[in-house]
Amino acid sequence: MKINSTPYRTIWPTADNAAVEIIDQTKLPHIFTTLRLETMRDAERAIRDMQVRGAPLIGVTGAYGVALSMKHHASDAALKASCDKLLLARPTAVNLRWGVERMRAFLALLPESDRAAAAWQEAARIADEDVEINASIGRHGSEFIRAMHEKKTSTVNILTHCNAGWLATVDWGTALAPIYTAFDAGIPLHVWVDETRPRNQGASLTAWELGQHGVPHTVIADNTGGHLMQHGMVDMAIVGTDRVTARGDVCNKIGTYLKALAAFDNGVPFYVALPTPTIDWTLQDGVKEIPIEERAAEEVTHISGLCDDGQVRTVRLTPENSRAANYGFDVTPARLVTGLITERGVVQADAGAMQVLR
Amino acid sequence: MKINSTPYRTIWPTADNAAVEIIDQTKLPHIFTTLRLETMRDAERAIRDMQVRGAPLIGVTGAYGVALSMKHHASDAALKASCDKLLLARPTAVNLRWGVERMRAFLALLPESDRAAAAWQEAARIADEDVEINASIGRHGSEFIRAMHEKKTSTVNILTHCNAGWLATVDWGTALAPIYTAFDAGIPLHVWVDETRPRNQGASLTAWELGQHGVPHTVIADNTGGHLMQHGMVDMAIVGTDRVTARGDVCNKIGTYLKALAAFDNGVPFYVALPTPTIDWTLQDGVKEIPIEERAAEEVTHISGLCDDGQVRTVRLTPENSRAANYGFDVTPARLVTGLITERGVVQADAGAMQVLR
Repeated sequence: MKINSTPYRTIWPTADNAAVEIIDQTKLPHIFTTLRLETMRDAERAIRDMQVRGAPLIGVTGAYGVALSMKHHASDAALKASCDKLLLARPTAVNLRWGVERMRAFLALLPESDRAAAAWQEAARIADEDVEINASIGRHGSEFIRAMHEKKTSTVNILTHCNAGWLATVDWGTALAPIYTAFDAGIPLHVWVDETRPRNQGASLTAWELGQHGVPHTVIADNTGGHLMQHGMVDMAIVGTDRVTARGDVCNKIGTYLKALAAFDNGVPFYVALPTPTIDWTLQDGVKEIPIEERAAEEVTHISGLCDDGQVRTVRLTPENSRAANYGFDVTPARLVTGLITERGVVQADAGAMQVLR
Repeated sequence: MKINSTPYRTIWPTADNAAVEIIDQTKLPHIFTTLRLETMRDAERAIRDMQVRGAPLIGVTGAYGVALSMKHHASDAALKASCDKLLLARPTAVNLRWGVERMRAFLALLPESDRAAAAWQEAARIADEDVEINASIGRHGSEFIRAMHEKKTSTVNILTHCNAGWLATVDWGTALAPIYTAFDAGIPLHVWVDETRPRNQGASLTAWELGQHGVPHTVIADNTGGHLMQHGMVDMAIVGTDRVTARGDVCNKIGTYLKALAAFDNGVPFYVALPTPTIDWTLQDGVKEIPIEERAAEEVTHISGLCDDGQVRTVRLTPENSRAANYGFDVTPARLVTGLITERGVVQADAGAMQVLR
């Protein structure tokens, strides 16, 4: 999507194919800066330090990490060492494992002398596949926005939570792909952006990427969505997801469940956008079966932002001796989900309907 | 309640009855400091600058403001000027108007020479009445906590939103009064404190006052309550309210509705604590009839906290060009409310049951 009128991806090869560049997402929204990754170590550091984040983008960065290592040492031993090292950058990232293992399996079959060039092409292919999946989610999901616009003949108001935008993928995003697609097609729309405490991915990343692409949006406290829905100010909600069970329960950023309850209570359609590999067919009851990660309490007690003096500073919000708890995700039961928007089409969030995606 | 083991009210006359002291609530939770109000102007400034906040406390501070003015000038003209000036400190505060007008009506009947002493006693009476109302709410509400403890025979987990604690009143608070009463009676309990964006009254004020009194508590992002309720980690929710309609719809800090939805969805009792004058008998449908105040966007885009250097600093959270919206309150429909805890007992949130409070 666009940054200040120029089209970007979140990761791209340099003109001479000697390196890849990324956006340093730790600096957003206050500073836009790109980083050049020349070695596997650079890629590993970018993943570990969360300069790239979002499952699909981490996977692609891992793949490029393998490709960068092949430029320097293409032996079996070097391939194994690079892949193993990259996996340790974020051991729990499923997409990182997927991207790195795909590269490992692909390269293992090739002679050493072919590996550098082939790895570069394969990493680019993985990136392009991600873009195509998200573009397809965008085409399918934008039909709901178009239909809503035709029905109400005025601006369509869409609420989203967290960042499931192009910054989390190579391009388009998942939840934001339908929004960008509809916006680029000239459908008048406006996005309510949940700030998404405690890490504020909405207020920082979603607001920034929508603003750069020119999409009208308004940041709100996470407490606000219910009130807006009660007053007809939200036409639909679209969120992303980290994991969907076989019966359609949706694990996503903490607070998603509360918005889904409000949407259901007010008859507002609640859509979840996802690439089909996000479905974990081994799980049924998401509330019972998905363990919820507890993250550092400091993400609740402290927050960073841009100070008057131009510095990004961290301030403490809570009393010195108060404990805080930080659950990263929650599970929205399938009964609250209007539809799953995938690259293969839209399906209902129930075990029977989802069979077509198997 | 207690601050560092010493019992306090939020406003109290000095030993020589020459002035009143207050806690400067703008400095909490990072700095505890008291202020001496010697003149009507001091009281007016404390109200205007929100050094005192919470409807009951503002009303009492207004009453003391009138009393302070009578010490210096007790003429009819001075009485009128003082009352009129105090009302302008926060023109929309219903309790301020109530406290000041009660003083005006009471003093107007007295000879000038009696006014100073009588005003001081009347202001103290208004403060004591607030304490007694809240203590009564505490007694009634604590029975639910006691019953829950007897049923589960382990720590009772209570979720609250915003600050309806003793800092918002003269003592005890409304939503927190049952909690303090149960805690002081030795019932094991723990409070989940919603941080309550955007102004963070939970993370700053509720966490601070619970901590000072020794009540176990944990601060959470506002997004978290639904997840906790899904997992049996909340036994009941107790919140305050700014206005209740004749049929029991509850206007309270933005985000209350979302927690009430989650409580209903998970069978968690959801109580609202209030003094009966909070009921507006002229209103029925809260969602339709109660206008919701829009506050400054800066409360969403910026936040203050304690910086590493010991200074309280303000940082910007959002991109420079992103709009923000800030709705202060929402309305929880009566169907989601388990009971109204008042100083006159507990009643169901419906028009028929509420007749006993009329």
